[in-house]
Amino acid sequence: MKQAAMEIAPANLDLTEILDRIDASVAEGHISEADQWIESLEPADRLIVLSRLSRLTRRNLFLGLPAEKAADYLHDIPEVQALNLLQGIEPNDAVHILDELPKDERADLVGELPQSAQDSILAEMKSDVAAEVRDLIEYEDEEAGGMMYVEFVAVPASLTLGEVTRKLQDNAADIAGYDVQYIYVVESGSGKLVGVLRLRDLLFSTPSQSVRSLMIVAPIAVKATQTLKNLHQFFADHSFVGVPVVDDEDRLVGVLRRGDVENALAEKYANHYMKSQGIVDEELRAMPLGLRAGRRLSWLSINIVLNIVAASVIAFYQDTLAQVIALAVFLPIISDMSGCGGNQAVAVSMRELSLGLVKPSEVSYVLKKEIGVGLINGFCLGLLIAAVAWLWQGNAWLGLVVGIAMMANTLLAVALGGTLPLVMRLLKLDPALASGPILTTVTDMCGFFLLLSLASLWLDKLI
Amino acid sequence: MKQAAMEIAPANLDLTEILDRIDASVAEGHISEADQWIESLEPADRLIVLSRLSRLTRRNLFLGLPAEKAADYLHDIPEVQALNLLQGIEPNDAVHILDELPKDERADLVGELPQSAQDSILAEMKSDVAAEVRDLIEYEDEEAGGMMYVEFVAVPASLTLGEVTRKLQDNAADIAGYDVQYIYVVESGSGKLVGVLRLRDLLFSTPSQSVRSLMIVAPIAVKATQTLKNLHQFFADHSFVGVPVVDDEDRLVGVLRRGDVENALAEKYANHYMKSQGIVDEELRAMPLGLRAGRRLSWLSINIVLNIVAASVIAFYQDTLAQVIALAVFLPIISDMSGCGGNQAVAVSMRELSLGLVKPSEVSYVLKKEIGVGLINGFCLGLLIAAVAWLWQGNAWLGLVVGIAMMANTLLAVALGGTLPLVMRLLKLDPALASGPILTTVTDMCGFFLLLSLASLWLDKLI
Repeated sequence: MKQAAMEIAPANLDLTEILDRIDASVAEGHISEADQWIESLEPADRLIVLSRLSRLTRRNLFLGLPAEKAADYLHDIPEVQALNLLQGIEPNDAVHILDELPKDERADLVGELPQSAQDSILAEMKSDVAAEVRDLIEYEDEEAGGMMYVEFVAVPASLTLGEVTRKLQDNAADIAGYDVQYIYVVESGSGKLVGVLRLRDLLFSTPSQSVRSLMIVAPIAVKATQTLKNLHQFFADHSFVGVPVVDDEDRLVGVLRRGDVENALAEKYANHYMKSQGIVDEELRAMPLGLRAGRRLSWLSINIVLNIVAASVIAFYQDTLAQVIALAVFLPIISDMSGCGGNQAVAVSMRELSLGLVKPSEVSYVLKKEIGVGLINGFCLGLLIAAVAWLWQGNAWLGLVVGIAMMANTLLAVALGGTLPLVMRLLKLDPALASGPILTTVTDMCGFFLLLSLASLWLDKLI
Repeated sequence: MKQAAMEIAPANLDLTEILDRIDASVAEGHISEADQWIESLEPADRLIVLSRLSRLTRRNLFLGLPAEKAADYLHDIPEVQALNLLQGIEPNDAVHILDELPKDERADLVGELPQSAQDSILAEMKSDVAAEVRDLIEYEDEEAGGMMYVEFVAVPASLTLGEVTRKLQDNAADIAGYDVQYIYVVESGSGKLVGVLRLRDLLFSTPSQSVRSLMIVAPIAVKATQTLKNLHQFFADHSFVGVPVVDDEDRLVGVLRRGDVENALAEKYANHYMKSQGIVDEELRAMPLGLRAGRRLSWLSINIVLNIVAASVIAFYQDTLAQVIALAVFLPIISDMSGCGGNQAVAVSMRELSLGLVKPSEVSYVLKKEIGVGLINGFCLGLLIAAVAWLWQGNAWLGLVVGIAMMANTLLAVALGGTLPLVMRLLKLDPALASGPILTTVTDMCGFFLLLSLASLWLDKLI
């Protein structure tokens, strides 16, 4: 197999050529030949190739592969492509592939599908599986229930250790795929979590001991509705690798691992960054051009309208500008520098909110802290730009006007930038998404107004 | 204790008041009273309070607490404060606290200290501990050796399962704090990794069986020098919870858990976001004002110089501007919109690089993809702004000039924004840090030049 792989992928083929060969093989219905190409690649290249297949090729490839293999690949490709694929094939084909995934990943994917696709896939699932998936997709992505792992081992407290060991042995085939570190002990009947048994405790004890005598009683658990921020804090406070998740009636519903929380945080940070730069929905360059351009354009359209609104302040002061044309040079500088200073403050607030170092209600604390920075940095930047203006035009009044406008606007931008994310959070809006455009528009308008109204006031000194 | 805690922290005290009380208690040398205040807080509030203590109070508090408690708190507070604290106390006090941390966290902290502080702390450590720490800090933060966990259980292949169980029982006290899921099997003498034993396999087998007969032979391992990107890919390809880490001679040196990789990725994303917004070093609002303002200012200074350079293009065309003053309204719009469009492309490239969906060498692939988006969005934005200019001033030529400048500059910004992160990566520079300022400066200069040179060319049509 390795030999065959080496023959099939000579080192001189680049990814584009390999993509073409896979396309051709799939088009001719030679799915296993296409898969040999994919298998022959290094993992890093394999991911790139799988993500760049055309929609049609990817669809036909996945339909032709054994379900288990298709599920492996589905797990590897970016989620947005996995969702597209599931919507592009027959619901019962989708169910065959989904059945091979771990239960929590299966539910995550189904939960992200549009309602109609979700309904048709759930209708094709066995009723008990569909019920399981429905229960899981009820949870929000950023709460314990939405992140937890549901393939755990639970036993009633009434068993002996010997009976537990036998139970594990009997189910060894199923359990083999699980991430077992603890055995959870539940009350028979109610399913309430009453204890935790460490796998290693089974080793150190005699088979006749009862589970109840050895288990850690009243174990720490988290509610399925706990939020990501609290869970992050929880794992910072406790050195646990995982923690059981219970519902409102204290019934065991899953296990949350430290890695699941870190993973969700990584996604959240990636999202902050993407949104702050104007990429609102996940975009991959392998997506169709029209979709990519359209999504970016919808964000740009809002921005251009806000920009025109802000620039209308300039239009209002055309007469002043016509008499002191040098001001036109400083308009973009003041606009851009306020943006920079304000965005720094936004970033610090986003970080402190994420780490739990500031509460959304602490607006006045942040304001106080940012006013200090705004005064110092506004003064320094104002002084610098005043000197540049004075030296360039030989007019100290121009320096004064430009310097004051820069100082005042930097202070405003820093104070607004620091507090805006907290206020947005209080209003249950997404701070990553709106802070940028709101900040830029307000500081642009104020900056243009400050510079041009001061210039109008002292016009006789500037001409 | 719980009762006492409730008495000591009545619900009507806010965090500032509690901070004052802790300050006062520590100043009077009543450390355990201060700690009772801290213990009485909810975990989320505790983190906020610990992070906002003054440097002096934090220092005296940590020195007064039992080492184990101090280590717990050290683990909770932001890393940058933990490092400050370690530098502010005597090296031997630092060592007492560090000794209570897991080995990998201890090494991470020591590794982040400035060289002189690192040397004095290492000199105070027991020589075997210091040697361990030295070995660990040799690894980069973003490679397997820098992220791995070093408290694992390893046994020689020659033992029987019964001997292994006895060994575990004898060391139960030490091992209790470990995250044991697998027992690693090494060749006696060389320390080479030869197998892996699952904890649960010990349960299902007879004590007289040999480790060698039951272990998974030639287990998958990663090299200590593997990079974060490859490790992320590794865990995407394998459903392992952890993987053994070996050095160049295949000796077992640690265990890397999925969560460690996710954690490092979360940090990386957070860093991308912070740097892209101009926060280069970690900043907490609890830090001294001068430090915060100074760090932000050093980034702003570079930006203001670049801004002045870009705006000098406007100064060059003052005569044109003086004759068509309406152009001044469109200068900031073109500058800002190119920035927006370019930053979107930067963000998509950063994301695709992080996910391994594009290789730094694929500049031409990205360029091709971005030119499509740049043409479509440049055309749309150009058309819109042309219409605004025409309607406002009633001059179709003005619309044409503004529209063409917007189109061409958007295309440039998108193409440059998409490829810049790849080029920076090829040049081993940090794309998150420099893409923004470079992009803005280039697109500002080109945008101003395009608008004003076109206007100069068709000046007779515009007046």
